[in-house]
Amino acid sequence: MRNDLAFEVWSRERQQRIEGVLEALLPAAGDTPARLAAAMRHAVLGGGKRLRPLLTYAASELVGADAQAADVRAAAVELIHAYSLVHDDLPCMDDDALRRGRPSCHVAFGVATALLAGDALQSLAFGALSRGPGGAEACRILAGAAGPAGMAGGQQLDLDAVADAIDLEALTRLQRMKTGALIDAAIRLGAGCGRSPSVEETRALGAYARAAGLAFQVVDDLLDAEGSSASLGKTAGKDAAQGKATFVTVLGTDEAKRHVQALHAEARAALRPLGRDATRLAELADWIVARRR
Amino acid sequence: MRNDLAFEVWSRERQQRIEGVLEALLPAAGDTPARLAAAMRHAVLGGGKRLRPLLTYAASELVGADAQAADVRAAAVELIHAYSLVHDDLPCMDDDALRRGRPSCHVAFGVATALLAGDALQSLAFGALSRGPGGAEACRILAGAAGPAGMAGGQQLDLDAVADAIDLEALTRLQRMKTGALIDAAIRLGAGCGRSPSVEETRALGAYARAAGLAFQVVDDLLDAEGSSASLGKTAGKDAAQGKATFVTVLGTDEAKRHVQALHAEARAALRPLGRDATRLAELADWIVARRR
Repeated sequence: MRNDLAFEVWSRERQQRIEGVLEALLPAAGDTPARLAAAMRHAVLGGGKRLRPLLTYAASELVGADAQAADVRAAAVELIHAYSLVHDDLPCMDDDALRRGRPSCHVAFGVATALLAGDALQSLAFGALSRGPGGAEACRILAGAAGPAGMAGGQQLDLDAVADAIDLEALTRLQRMKTGALIDAAIRLGAGCGRSPSVEETRALGAYARAAGLAFQVVDDLLDAEGSSASLGKTAGKDAAQGKATFVTVLGTDEAKRHVQALHAEARAALRPLGRDATRLAELADWIVARRR
Repeated sequence: MRNDLAFEVWSRERQQRIEGVLEALLPAAGDTPARLAAAMRHAVLGGGKRLRPLLTYAASELVGADAQAADVRAAAVELIHAYSLVHDDLPCMDDDALRRGRPSCHVAFGVATALLAGDALQSLAFGALSRGPGGAEACRILAGAAGPAGMAGGQQLDLDAVADAIDLEALTRLQRMKTGALIDAAIRLGAGCGRSPSVEETRALGAYARAAGLAFQVVDDLLDAEGSSASLGKTAGKDAAQGKATFVTVLGTDEAKRHVQALHAEARAALRPLGRDATRLAELADWIVARRR
């Protein structure tokens, strides 16, 4: 089988798999009020690239774990990601009506229910994670990535930033917190569900996560500047309309594209000491850079 | 020492103690953006009755744990409570400008930062809890209480409820989820940090938590109907203004007061098999009923 075809098969299989895991973890009406359950399901199911779960699965293969061992960890990271999108789309934040090609959660269910759905998805992520092996350590990793020194902190920096008063260093720090921290956690959680990774492996994965996470964000900024809402499944051109600092506004389009290539090479190079076991991670770096949505 | 004086000394000492624990857990500017750190501190520090931490400490004494063993658990519950107040006060929810005698978080820091502060407080709670002994089990308990079948679900039921279309049974279910679940978790987390409680003790604590949690809410509704904003430190008369279903609107004032007395007796009776070790919990039931704010 051609390499890119093997990756295609692997990633599709994992995307279907995580859909089932998320479906099983999400509440149905019953113990949970019907409207809240529906809003949570709307926010999580039926869409999304599932990049973070794929990273968790890929990292778990590096340490010899089977997919089952990584399921709940992969899902917990995606639940946190989904909650952050719901809250990000709220009128008080980005005020975005379109997400994953559908009405965003507050458009479909109202602002108050969307707020609660995001809150409840965060609780659900920690609850699920706490049940698995190494649950305490896993909760610690995820909480660090989601919290004030991670994703939530990065979103605050994003609010604070004024387009013309931020340089590459500050933007890089912002994005490392806002999107990089959770991508790093996805990989660490995957690498934590098999044999213990060596110091060298842990260092390599950290370097990979930093470069791949940043590459993901630069591509996101390029797509926002160049793509269409239809192809993205979310509102395009939003950054410019909101006067946001992005890698495109700070570097310009050409330099941003070169930055992506450099980060891609860096991510690939970081994996080199890990040999063939890191093939999926390497392919995911290619995918991050080549993606059109 | 008179009994009520001994309780007064105990509760004040624990209130000061938890303030220090929360202070130490909350981020200062540094890793966390200054504005977010300030909003989180504003939401948590300098006010609040600290009922839930007191319940955690009291339950921990029942199982022979010292205060230090209960510190982080008590704090984690309070962090969840504080986050829920921040999100509850947002314009899309209760739209309340006053909390703990001060401007609510979004009035002081803006809606977007308040949203993030609430989100980050939830992450912080799980992160803190995951670090202590029995961290996974503790995260599981807290997530269940905070999530879709607990507090967040109760808030959804609150949104769904229309004042004249809810009966005592539905209101009781709503409040058991909205405030009762976290009070129950506070007690379970306390009872989980010493020797293993017996089946009888666990059952007694559960019955106590149900009655005391409900008594707390009925008193809350009575205070909202009868108190002043100045004495409460939050907006009084809010329930009636918003047409909310409360124990006062459903039962009437006199019957609500009788309901409080019955629940108080039930909470006290539940503790009887536990003997003198449950003294603080019994006194907390008295305090819940006698409180003026």
